[in-house]
Amino acid sequence: MANDKALTTRADDFSAWYNELVLRAELADYSPVRGCMVIRPYGYRLWELMRDQLDRRFKETGHQNAYFPLFIPQSFLAREAEHVEGFAKEAAIITHTRLKAVEGGGLIPDPDSKLEEPLIVRPTSETIIYEMFSKWVQSYRDLPLLYNQWANVVRWEMRTRLFLRTTEFLWQEGHTAHATEAEAEEETLRMLGVYREFMEEWLAMPVVTGRKSESEKFAGALRTYATEAMMQDNRALQAGTSHNLGQNFAKQFDLKFASESGAEEYAWNTSWGVSTRMIGGLVMTHGDDQGLVMPPRVAPIQVVIVPIFRKAEERELVLQRAKDIAGMLRDIRTHVDDRDNLTPGAKFYEWETKGVPFRIEIGPKDIAKQQVVLVQRVVAEGEERKKFLPEADVVSSMERRLDEFQAFLLERARERREANSYRGVESYERFREILDGEGGFVYTGWCGSAECEARVKEETRATIRVLPFEEFRSAEAPTKCVVCGGESVTEAVWAKAY
Amino acid sequence: MANDKALTTRADDFSAWYNELVLRAELADYSPVRGCMVIRPYGYRLWELMRDQLDRRFKETGHQNAYFPLFIPQSFLAREAEHVEGFAKEAAIITHTRLKAVEGGGLIPDPDSKLEEPLIVRPTSETIIYEMFSKWVQSYRDLPLLYNQWANVVRWEMRTRLFLRTTEFLWQEGHTAHATEAEAEEETLRMLGVYREFMEEWLAMPVVTGRKSESEKFAGALRTYATEAMMQDNRALQAGTSHNLGQNFAKQFDLKFASESGAEEYAWNTSWGVSTRMIGGLVMTHGDDQGLVMPPRVAPIQVVIVPIFRKAEERELVLQRAKDIAGMLRDIRTHVDDRDNLTPGAKFYEWETKGVPFRIEIGPKDIAKQQVVLVQRVVAEGEERKKFLPEADVVSSMERRLDEFQAFLLERARERREANSYRGVESYERFREILDGEGGFVYTGWCGSAECEARVKEETRATIRVLPFEEFRSAEAPTKCVVCGGESVTEAVWAKAY
Repeated sequence: MANDKALTTRADDFSAWYNELVLRAELADYSPVRGCMVIRPYGYRLWELMRDQLDRRFKETGHQNAYFPLFIPQSFLAREAEHVEGFAKEAAIITHTRLKAVEGGGLIPDPDSKLEEPLIVRPTSETIIYEMFSKWVQSYRDLPLLYNQWANVVRWEMRTRLFLRTTEFLWQEGHTAHATEAEAEEETLRMLGVYREFMEEWLAMPVVTGRKSESEKFAGALRTYATEAMMQDNRALQAGTSHNLGQNFAKQFDLKFASESGAEEYAWNTSWGVSTRMIGGLVMTHGDDQGLVMPPRVAPIQVVIVPIFRKAEERELVLQRAKDIAGMLRDIRTHVDDRDNLTPGAKFYEWETKGVPFRIEIGPKDIAKQQVVLVQRVVAEGEERKKFLPEADVVSSMERRLDEFQAFLLERARERREANSYRGVESYERFREILDGEGGFVYTGWCGSAECEARVKEETRATIRVLPFEEFRSAEAPTKCVVCGGESVTEAVWAKAY
Repeated sequence: MANDKALTTRADDFSAWYNELVLRAELADYSPVRGCMVIRPYGYRLWELMRDQLDRRFKETGHQNAYFPLFIPQSFLAREAEHVEGFAKEAAIITHTRLKAVEGGGLIPDPDSKLEEPLIVRPTSETIIYEMFSKWVQSYRDLPLLYNQWANVVRWEMRTRLFLRTTEFLWQEGHTAHATEAEAEEETLRMLGVYREFMEEWLAMPVVTGRKSESEKFAGALRTYATEAMMQDNRALQAGTSHNLGQNFAKQFDLKFASESGAEEYAWNTSWGVSTRMIGGLVMTHGDDQGLVMPPRVAPIQVVIVPIFRKAEERELVLQRAKDIAGMLRDIRTHVDDRDNLTPGAKFYEWETKGVPFRIEIGPKDIAKQQVVLVQRVVAEGEERKKFLPEADVVSSMERRLDEFQAFLLERARERREANSYRGVESYERFREILDGEGGFVYTGWCGSAECEARVKEETRATIRVLPFEEFRSAEAPTKCVVCGGESVTEAVWAKAY
C-alpha cells in the first residue's frame, strides 16, 4: 500500500480504475507467467469465504466433492466434436516429462521423454469425469451421481485481465448424471438458482437469469443457462453458467445404465461452474473512486478498529479498549489495526481502499465519553458516513448494521442496473444508439436467427446475454425482431460483455 | 462395493492388500491418465476433514493462504542448482498452447504455438513464490511473510501407488520469509510440531521426528526435518517435511530487505508440506484384513446406523427410530443407511470395509426394549466388539466412546511401532538381519559419512529416516557407527521406506 497517488476514477478510465484497484487493494498481483495471476491473501480470504458458502449450498443440495486429474488425454478432448472445437485453440499442452542439460549450459525438454499422446491441462473436466462415471455406473440404482470439484483450470487466453480472464483460474465444476432428461433439466436449473441466490444474497450482485442462444452456449451442451450481472460501465459479466449436456458426452464416453425395465440407456449429464471471476464482478459492481466496497457477508474484515492517540502513555489504554471492543463483536470478523508505523490517516486510506464495511475510531476522549466514531464505507445519498455513537450501541447494533449495509449494496446495484436497462426498444437505430453510447442491458424481440445475432455482434460488439426467464421479461412481450423486423420468437437481453 | 471376494490379507501380500483396500473402500480409483488418480467422494471427504483441521492450525500460528501460478518458467527452476537437479527428471513440460487438426483427422500440437520458453507444471513452488516475495518485501517491517497454499503439484513418477506416489497430488506448501536465521529455524521447527501434533492427535498416527541427513534433505534446503511413521509392514512413511532453506533461494531470487540498521540483507526462507500421501499412511497404520479403520476425528462417518426389519410394516417404525437416534447424536457425523436394496449383512460388510468407527443396529425388538446393538470397528484383545446397550446410554456416551477409540488407535499404533523398533544395535550383521528380515526402525550410531549411508542403501535399500530429536534418542547414546565401526557423531533411525 505504498502508493498514495489517487486512483484513476471510473469516469476517466474504467478499465484502468479496475486494474489499479485490484493491485492496490492487494487482491491479486501479476505473476512472471504470462496470463497467470497471484491471488494475494486478502483476495484469497475473500475467495475462501465465497467458496465455503457455495460449498455448503452444494452439500445441502446433495452433492459430494471429489477430485479428478489435472491432465486430459488429447484423444479425450477430441471425442466430442463441438467440445474440442471450443477448447483446442487455448490448450496448454504437455509433450515432455524430463528436462535435460545441454552442453554449454541450459536445459531443454529431453527428446527421449516425449509423450506418445500429448496431455492437455484441463480447461474443464467433462471428458475425464464422464469416462470415470461410465466405470462406476451400472444400473439406475447408481444414479443420480451428484459430484462437484474445486479445482484450477487453464485456458490459454490471448488477452488477460486480473480475475476476469486469466490463463489459469480457480473454480468449481459440478458434474452430474441422471436417468432422465427431466431430472437433468431440473438439476441444471436448481444449480443456476443456487448461483443466483448466492450472488444476490452474498455478493449483493443482482443477476438476470435465462437461457443462452445457440451461438453462446457451452461447447458440447444441449442448453446453457447463465447469470448475468451488470458492471458499473454498463457491460455485462457472465458470472455463472449451468449446462444441460443432454446425452452428448454420455454417448462419447459410453456412460450407460440398465434402467428399471432392464433396457440399456445413456445417462443425462449436467455441468455447472463459477470461478474467481466473481471477484472481478464484485469489484466492478460495488467499488468506487476511493476503492473496494466489500459486501459484509464475504468481507474478510467486516469491522476495522483504528486506535487513535498522540502520547505514548495513551497507547496502552486505547489499544486495550480497541481489543475489548473487538472481543465484544464476537461473531464479527474484526481487525484491530495496531501498527505503530502508520498514521491513523494512512490506516483509514488503506482500509477504505480495501473496502472494509465499517471502521471504528477510538481515542482517549472517546473512551472518557464511552463513545466511538463509526464510519460506514458508503452511505445512501444525504446520509452521514461518520457518526459519534455510544460504544454500547455500536456493539449491540453491529450485526444489524452489517445486514442493512448488505441489503443497501444489493438495492443500490439493482437500481443502477434497472436505470441502465432499456425495454420496449423496437428500432434498430435506437438499439445501436444505446449500445454504441452509454451501453446497458437492452431488452428486445428477436426472430431467433443466428444471422441477426451475428450482425449485431459485428456492428456493435454486443451479444445476446440471455433469453430471460419469465420474471425478467417485459410486461409487454415484444412482437418484432429488433434487427430484421421479422416476427419475434423470444425476448432477448443484449449487452456488451466482459 | 460390488466385489464380495475377501480382501487379500496383510500377511499374504501387504502391497496387494493396500491397493485392493483403497479401491474397495472407494477412497480412490485409477484414472485413464498414467500415474494420476481420482479421489472419490469418501476419500475426498477424509481429505477435507484433514485439510480443515490443518488449515485452522496454520491460521492459528499466523499464516495466511494465497494462491500462486500452476506453471513455473523453466529458467526459474534452473536458478537454484540443487533444486533443478532434484526436479528436472520428473517434470511435466508445456511446450505448445494450441491443437491443430491434421488432414485425414486427428490433432497435433500446433507448431506455430510453440512457447519460446517451456513451462513446468509446479513440482513445488519455492521459485515462483520467492520471486513474488522479492517484489513485495522492501524493509524488515514487511517481514515475516507467513504464507500457505493449498494446491495440486505434479512430479512425473515412474512407479506410482495410489496416494503414496502419484504423478499429481494434492498438498499444502507453506512458504515463509524471515529477517534472521534463528527466526527461520524456529518457524521450521514450529511447523514440524504442528504436523506431529496433527498426525498423532487427529490421524492417531505416531511419528518419529528429527533431522534428515544431507543426502536425504530437500533439493535446495539448508536443513530438512521430517515426521516418519511406521506402517504395518514395518516400512517407514515420510508423512511431512519442514525445510529451513537458508538464504539459498533468496540469493537466486533477489529477495532482499533493508534491515533496521539500514543494511541490505537477504531474507531467510522456510517451506513445509504435507499431502494426500497421509491418507495412504492412515490406511497402512490402522487398516486390517476386514478393511479400513478410520480414526474418529477424521472419519467422514463416525457412526453408521443400520435399521433391521423383516416385514414391510416394520420399516417405518425402525427407520424413524434410526433417524431419531441420528438426530440425538447431534455433533457426531452420523449416517442412517436406509437403502432398501441391500441386506443388513451387506451393509455391515460395506461399512466395515470403509472403516466406520461405530455401527448401531436397531430392530423392532430393540425398540421395544429401548436398546440398540453397538459394534465397535476394532477392540482391544479380549474385549467384545458387539454389545447390547440401553439406547439412552449409547447416545449419551458416544462422544466419550469416540474419544476413547481415537486414543486406543494411537496407543495401539505406538505399541506396534515400539515393538518393531530396535535400539542398541551395534553389529552390522544384526543390523542387516533386521532390515533384510521383518524390517522396522533400527536406531544405531552413525559416523556421519555419506559413504556408510550409501553402503546401507546399496546393500539393504534402507535409508536414514531421521537423525532423531532428543526425546526419541536411546537412553544410552551409541558410540560407534553401525556400518564402519568408526566414532558415532549422532544416533540415526534406519528403515526401508515408501
